[in-house]
Amino acid sequence: MPSVTSREWRLRARPVGEPKPSDFELATVESTEPGPGQVQVRNLWMTVDPYMRGRMNDAKSYAAPFELGQAMNGGAIGQVVASRDDSFKPGDLVSSFAGWREAFTAPAVAVNLAKLPNLQLPSQAYLGVAGMPGHTAWSGLLKIGEPKPGETVFVSGAAGAVGSLVGQIAKIRGCHVVGSAGGKDKCDYLKSIGFDEAIDYRAAGDLRGLTKALQHAAPKGVDVYFDNVGGDHLTAAIACANMYARMPICGMISLYNATGPVPGPNNMTNLIGRRIKLQGFIVSDYAATYSEFVQEMAGWISSGSIKYEETVMTGIEKAPEAFLALFSGGNTGKMLVKLG
Amino acid sequence: MPSVTSREWRLRARPVGEPKPSDFELATVESTEPGPGQVQVRNLWMTVDPYMRGRMNDAKSYAAPFELGQAMNGGAIGQVVASRDDSFKPGDLVSSFAGWREAFTAPAVAVNLAKLPNLQLPSQAYLGVAGMPGHTAWSGLLKIGEPKPGETVFVSGAAGAVGSLVGQIAKIRGCHVVGSAGGKDKCDYLKSIGFDEAIDYRAAGDLRGLTKALQHAAPKGVDVYFDNVGGDHLTAAIACANMYARMPICGMISLYNATGPVPGPNNMTNLIGRRIKLQGFIVSDYAATYSEFVQEMAGWISSGSIKYEETVMTGIEKAPEAFLALFSGGNTGKMLVKLG
Repeated sequence: MPSVTSREWRLRARPVGEPKPSDFELATVESTEPGPGQVQVRNLWMTVDPYMRGRMNDAKSYAAPFELGQAMNGGAIGQVVASRDDSFKPGDLVSSFAGWREAFTAPAVAVNLAKLPNLQLPSQAYLGVAGMPGHTAWSGLLKIGEPKPGETVFVSGAAGAVGSLVGQIAKIRGCHVVGSAGGKDKCDYLKSIGFDEAIDYRAAGDLRGLTKALQHAAPKGVDVYFDNVGGDHLTAAIACANMYARMPICGMISLYNATGPVPGPNNMTNLIGRRIKLQGFIVSDYAATYSEFVQEMAGWISSGSIKYEETVMTGIEKAPEAFLALFSGGNTGKMLVKLG
Repeated sequence: MPSVTSREWRLRARPVGEPKPSDFELATVESTEPGPGQVQVRNLWMTVDPYMRGRMNDAKSYAAPFELGQAMNGGAIGQVVASRDDSFKPGDLVSSFAGWREAFTAPAVAVNLAKLPNLQLPSQAYLGVAGMPGHTAWSGLLKIGEPKPGETVFVSGAAGAVGSLVGQIAKIRGCHVVGSAGGKDKCDYLKSIGFDEAIDYRAAGDLRGLTKALQHAAPKGVDVYFDNVGGDHLTAAIACANMYARMPICGMISLYNATGPVPGPNNMTNLIGRRIKLQGFIVSDYAATYSEFVQEMAGWISSGSIKYEETVMTGIEKAPEAFLALFSGGNTGKMLVKLG
């Protein structure tokens, strides 16, 4: 195979607050023929995820910052074009961490290259329901939230890739499930996939309205709150928490574009009397459980217990737009960029 | 035995903000001769503890609110004067929940009456180092904080009844121990009982100064933060937290007299990347471990591994003053009121 022209997104400037189009630049490079031990891959799909916002800052965090002037990276699904690694052959469908680009040539280990499991799922599912977001929902809810049948589970960002699965897994576990999302369409979607109650946080207005809506949707109180949003959502969840409530802290998307410190919940003393547990986590902590998770998830999908939605933008040039849409609620379910 | 005159403190008005002397009234009652099944006790010691502030509000919490116009209650140590319960005889030293009064006559179960263990400790120790505060320190640190040798443990309110024990137990477990307290005398006290570092939070000034002082005192970061204070202390601890830090939330004395909601830590997003756990608790959750705790603590005291201090005010009339002094830092170690 000859070299292949690839376009890739680079970080041109570290965003201050909400990222602007000018913070990114699209460059054209050649993906060369593979050398010994290398694999050449053409990407079919790439993912954009909220956690990538943190990587645009120059701050020590759990994921290394993107480097200025370099291609960004992240999850991708592709097809092997040419290979000089015995483990891969042309035509193989693979996952990698070499997203934000159309094609690449690299040693497998450098980009975390792996063949897709053979589980009768469409390939892009490994970026969503059967990939990092699905595994995040499953780990955080089951390993930290530990919901018991009959308990009330509340999840924010409930129409997103992670939240929509948290709610459905909680239903499988026999819980009363409340989700919050922005707008009537998303709330209708939540009801259509089995949520017992859906709160439109935009209609609810401020903290007081949100708390009131949550009290109404969770009349027995909240036993598990899966936080994707932070801010007022976390405060409302603490206000409505039952004794011994568990709160897996997965994300705080409402705060990621903040340009300075944001005050936390104004009701932290409730943690004491109600013995509330808040616990932050990252899906990579549960890497050893991926195979258990993906088998269970594939079963739930094939039995119809889990439904999932994708919001797809097409073409590498759309990737920053897809990423930015995460912060304005532009996605239902997993946000994907189709490249192939 | 005839009836005995007893003075008792009643809550006259629910305090708004910091309690005032006029919120309390001292009444004189007769402790009558015991009827069948009753025990008559003269109190020798009573305790005042920060959690009692919450009981002065008319709010549902883990401890029932004090009733207006009724005697308040809380831990006390006394001596049996007369008994018509076969389990108790005159002269027995007993603990009860009938504090804030000089004497009482009641069925044993109504006041949680129990004979003191025979562990060669002065009787008032069962209100402090070998009682509720000691058990609180032991449970929160060991069961939630789970400190490992070589880790850094930070405790606020470190010169108090709970904090001074948290630090010493952490030293026994081989940790680097940092405490914060108000003023040079208390910091000197912390060093004298084995703390590696003592932060004078008054000298540190604001959040920025406190965070800087903590970074200096805990150069490897904080693995366990035992919170007695809340507010800026919790924010600073989160700022300095290591990966997988554990934070037992025991109290937030800086907030108890607040008259409205107080903003929480402005750095809650750190919970995610650093996988921080915040967990509120109440010592009664660990009631089943009291006997294990008190044996271990008595051993530490007799071997000299644990030292403890008491601040004593004398006479029932001093009880509100002793209670209010908790909020202005008027105590080193356990605050007690001597009645006998």
